[in-house]
Amino acid sequence: MTTPAEPMVPAGPDLPPTLVVGCGLIGTSIALGLRSQGIDVHLRDADPAHLAEAVERGAGSPQAPADPALVVVAVPPAATVDAVVGALREWPEAVVTDVASIKGGVVAGVDAEDGSGRFVGGHPMAGSERSGPEAASGRLFEGRPWVLTPGSRATDDAVRLVEEVAVMLGGVPVVMDAATHDDAVALVSHVPQVMSSLTAARLLEAPSAHLALAGQGVRDVTRVAGSDPTLWREILRGNATAVRTVLHAVRQDLDTLLTALDDGADLAGLLLTGQRGSERLPGKHGGVQPELAVVFVQVSDRPGELSRLFARVGEIGVNIEDLRIDHELGRPVGLVEISVMAARADHLTAELETSGWTAYR
Amino acid sequence: MTTPAEPMVPAGPDLPPTLVVGCGLIGTSIALGLRSQGIDVHLRDADPAHLAEAVERGAGSPQAPADPALVVVAVPPAATVDAVVGALREWPEAVVTDVASIKGGVVAGVDAEDGSGRFVGGHPMAGSERSGPEAASGRLFEGRPWVLTPGSRATDDAVRLVEEVAVMLGGVPVVMDAATHDDAVALVSHVPQVMSSLTAARLLEAPSAHLALAGQGVRDVTRVAGSDPTLWREILRGNATAVRTVLHAVRQDLDTLLTALDDGADLAGLLLTGQRGSERLPGKHGGVQPELAVVFVQVSDRPGELSRLFARVGEIGVNIEDLRIDHELGRPVGLVEISVMAARADHLTAELETSGWTAYR
Repeated sequence: MTTPAEPMVPAGPDLPPTLVVGCGLIGTSIALGLRSQGIDVHLRDADPAHLAEAVERGAGSPQAPADPALVVVAVPPAATVDAVVGALREWPEAVVTDVASIKGGVVAGVDAEDGSGRFVGGHPMAGSERSGPEAASGRLFEGRPWVLTPGSRATDDAVRLVEEVAVMLGGVPVVMDAATHDDAVALVSHVPQVMSSLTAARLLEAPSAHLALAGQGVRDVTRVAGSDPTLWREILRGNATAVRTVLHAVRQDLDTLLTALDDGADLAGLLLTGQRGSERLPGKHGGVQPELAVVFVQVSDRPGELSRLFARVGEIGVNIEDLRIDHELGRPVGLVEISVMAARADHLTAELETSGWTAYR
Repeated sequence: MTTPAEPMVPAGPDLPPTLVVGCGLIGTSIALGLRSQGIDVHLRDADPAHLAEAVERGAGSPQAPADPALVVVAVPPAATVDAVVGALREWPEAVVTDVASIKGGVVAGVDAEDGSGRFVGGHPMAGSERSGPEAASGRLFEGRPWVLTPGSRATDDAVRLVEEVAVMLGGVPVVMDAATHDDAVALVSHVPQVMSSLTAARLLEAPSAHLALAGQGVRDVTRVAGSDPTLWREILRGNATAVRTVLHAVRQDLDTLLTALDDGADLAGLLLTGQRGSERLPGKHGGVQPELAVVFVQVSDRPGELSRLFARVGEIGVNIEDLRIDHELGRPVGLVEISVMAARADHLTAELETSGWTAYR
């Protein structure tokens, strides 16, 4: 993984005109980000309305560029290989990158058609629950991993150029081969999505009285199940091999657990593996997870209440590491869970109580 | 479901002495809550250290009561039936309730031994990642469902008394039969826990480079997998029948999905069912989910920054419906996701930008 010492590089007049093909959420966001760094950006989209909206938002010019140094292909996954190959032919000097969320098929498809070494696969890992140019933001990529999958033929110069663009947009470039990327996103994104959908699917036919007992746990597990089914169908289809491998392992664990439920054998094995697995996720700022403790504070549902609370926490001088609002059943009151360094939790609780808040651990 | 019009009833001198058997997190929390309402509370625990700690915290007296009106049995699940039956015999006038998180076995076990109608099963749906009397709080139950499973013989007076206690502690009493309760918690708590553990278990052997691509989705899905495996083993064992039924349905959906991945059939069915299922969870304050929109705001990792942000949001006059801190990879900056009513999102974004915040939708 490449982590730049300086997250922002100064805009260089070195970076010549860029063409962005596809003015959806990602393409328009990249264009806006490059424009804000003073880069000359040109736009293309098969949909005139998308193109007009992106131009109107200041993402770039609808005129064809004379000689782009970089072409960013940001079209739907199924159309990516053709668009990349077309761009490599149309602009024989340009480096071409894409943004498709599954890389194996794209890299193999382009490699089969092109031997120039000017293609560098890319996957900026950012998104939004909204889509289209109207939802775009030049800041969409800030702090997010931006995976580069150069393929075997890509030149060092081509990789460096795409890395520079990722860094310029605030992303964190991570170079890996396409198969590793696809395995990784199957594990940390696609399978969690499937597990969330499987859990949420059970709720559809449930009596309302059952759902009334739902707490924060089921809400967390099923949150991503709310995402667009059409988009996810394409993603799962595109990464079927890697997703299938992980899901078969899940199915084996599930069968082991069902057997243990049947014969009364020890269930703790899987639960312990899960606990240890969850602890492996990188913590805040990509570092080691610090020991945190939760302080619960009651707030009423009025504008300004959270402000008053956090002002007091700031005065007390305790940094908030994480927080969550837990909506209480049948009351106009929220419970805010403030995660702080464990050693500071008692102090914070006592000080909040002294100032009249209902706070407890 | 019973929802009291007034969440708090005034402390009554009518409620005579209460005995709490078991001074763990839940028992001590109940005792503290009753003491704060002026109730005469007596404590009992097989572990002298637990008893001493609870007494020291002001949860009640270690002396046996003369004639308790209510006995709350808050011992580990496996010991509950014996402790309840013992209490019904020892105090022939008292109403007895328990706090075990699975109700079928408890209600059946007590019914087989006792015909007095003085037992009302209970499950206050509150907890903490910590345990023991030192983690107890009289406010643990505020706003949480408190399920009552009276069994067929329980008298109306007995049910009313336990309901009063639940309300006195800020809980929301929900009366249902034991089987319905167990089915409900299998669906909204136990199976989501299993699904979280199954997902997290896949992370244990994963290369770190894969985990570096983890975003908020997998963190949400696997959060509860961090819970105590020993506790969950007991819960799953105790509710094996109901959990098994739901997990078999999950397994069938998983097989359907695996087949669809293999033969390229439509995957959207399950995803759509999951999306609709997730929408059935009751929204904030138990009501209908309002249409919310997310505004992203960058904050630096310093005490007081969130306070400054929420002070500004309060001045702008927009109420925060929900929020989340999304930790960015490799940067001392957090991204705060503020959920507000959709109609207010653009106004909030523009006003924050005007005040110098980096905010976008």
